[in-house]
Amino acid sequence: MPRYRLILEYDGAGLVGWQRQANGRSVQAILEDAVARFCGVAVTVHGAGRTDAGVHALAQAAHLDLPRAVAPEVIRSALNQHVKPAAVTILAVAAVDEQFDARRSARGRVYRYRILNRRPPPAVDRGRVWHVGSPLDVEAMQEAAQLLIGRHDFTTFRDSLCQARSPVKTLDALEVTRQGEEIIVEARARSFLHHQVRNMVGTLKLVGTGKWQIAAVAEALAARDRRAGGPTAPPQGLYLVRVVYPEEWALNKGSG
Amino acid sequence: MPRYRLILEYDGAGLVGWQRQANGRSVQAILEDAVARFCGVAVTVHGAGRTDAGVHALAQAAHLDLPRAVAPEVIRSALNQHVKPAAVTILAVAAVDEQFDARRSARGRVYRYRILNRRPPPAVDRGRVWHVGSPLDVEAMQEAAQLLIGRHDFTTFRDSLCQARSPVKTLDALEVTRQGEEIIVEARARSFLHHQVRNMVGTLKLVGTGKWQIAAVAEALAARDRRAGGPTAPPQGLYLVRVVYPEEWALNKGSG
Repeated sequence: MPRYRLILEYDGAGLVGWQRQANGRSVQAILEDAVARFCGVAVTVHGAGRTDAGVHALAQAAHLDLPRAVAPEVIRSALNQHVKPAAVTILAVAAVDEQFDARRSARGRVYRYRILNRRPPPAVDRGRVWHVGSPLDVEAMQEAAQLLIGRHDFTTFRDSLCQARSPVKTLDALEVTRQGEEIIVEARARSFLHHQVRNMVGTLKLVGTGKWQIAAVAEALAARDRRAGGPTAPPQGLYLVRVVYPEEWALNKGSG
Repeated sequence: MPRYRLILEYDGAGLVGWQRQANGRSVQAILEDAVARFCGVAVTVHGAGRTDAGVHALAQAAHLDLPRAVAPEVIRSALNQHVKPAAVTILAVAAVDEQFDARRSARGRVYRYRILNRRPPPAVDRGRVWHVGSPLDVEAMQEAAQLLIGRHDFTTFRDSLCQARSPVKTLDALEVTRQGEEIIVEARARSFLHHQVRNMVGTLKLVGTGKWQIAAVAEALAARDRRAGGPTAPPQGLYLVRVVYPEEWALNKGSG
């Protein structure tokens, strides 16, 4: 059966997240229903990673198998018609060989977290940022973020429901920058634990307000205890920006 | 009675526009209701300009008179509480003298129009951009835009319901630029006719797709006939970015 890779954008508001669930609309269910209307067959759409309820994606990756070969551009147009009115868009479709697996073939994930750091709450960007009204020290946050880079046991930043076999992960980058009224936290790793980015951001915010010293972040990491970390930042500020694949499956191949 | 200037951000989706109307929620009514809950008095909030249904503002200006002096920061916090849950935010409040009138004192308005120019429809930015799927020639659009600069009779780009006394306006700038997948049209003038920006953008889009030659824009302008212009671009791409005041009322004075 021919396999296709999808690149997807979605607004997480009002969705229960990537994974199909009994109690609400998921991105996976929206896509699988669209494929069923398009091809008349029930297929599974496999995502590169499970985003949580309310989390957005600018370029989530997924794969699916169709019963027969279809031109990628036809798949893209048809699925974009059939996902309506959901706030899910198929940005690109490419034919890939059966070795490709959206989750297992991925070599990296890039997430971005947007904090709106000003007194008045957001209006135009409501539901797309975390509003923090008190001033944040971006330099202190950036310095603290560097303490988390590298291979560590990230139990302190791991949700208790996380199903990963090991809490040891390698964090490749965690960059905190100010862009106008926003503070952007960009995180790169081969893979992340459940809630890891939001738990790291929630902890860095404590450094930004001055409630925590910079060194406290290293102590929290060393504690290997979720209770030693800061609170979980809300989902609406988080964006899955990119999934990185090896050269043979580079994302500039295919329609889009 | 002490007078205050407000700077406002709002998401136009689901609102009937600036002006109070019988059939739906307006920005003006939301603000006047918030003032009534805060002070217990009915006041009029005067805007610098009437934005249409669905049009957004990043920094609309307005003024109002209160029965007694209140600290600007207190007004801002209280109004931001009382406008909830509307997607309207009071960014700044400043005490101004009675000579200040949000509409009459304004020396300029800046609008931005966002076109998402890619095949797949928007997901994260749905309701915040105009989606144009066919490729647009941004250089041709920019060249055509320059034909509209200056003092002209803009009847071709004026809505039939426009109440301005004269169709003659001076357009100071109309800049078309590409920013990634978006095409941004930024317009500056002392004031605009009703639908003028959206009608100019709808016409420039015809140049962008190649349906119109660049010179056709000058001919349309010279015709002084709304039927000679292109269609009205939809409201969700339009943002009131800034209202310009003379030095004595510069916007960096006051809370915010």
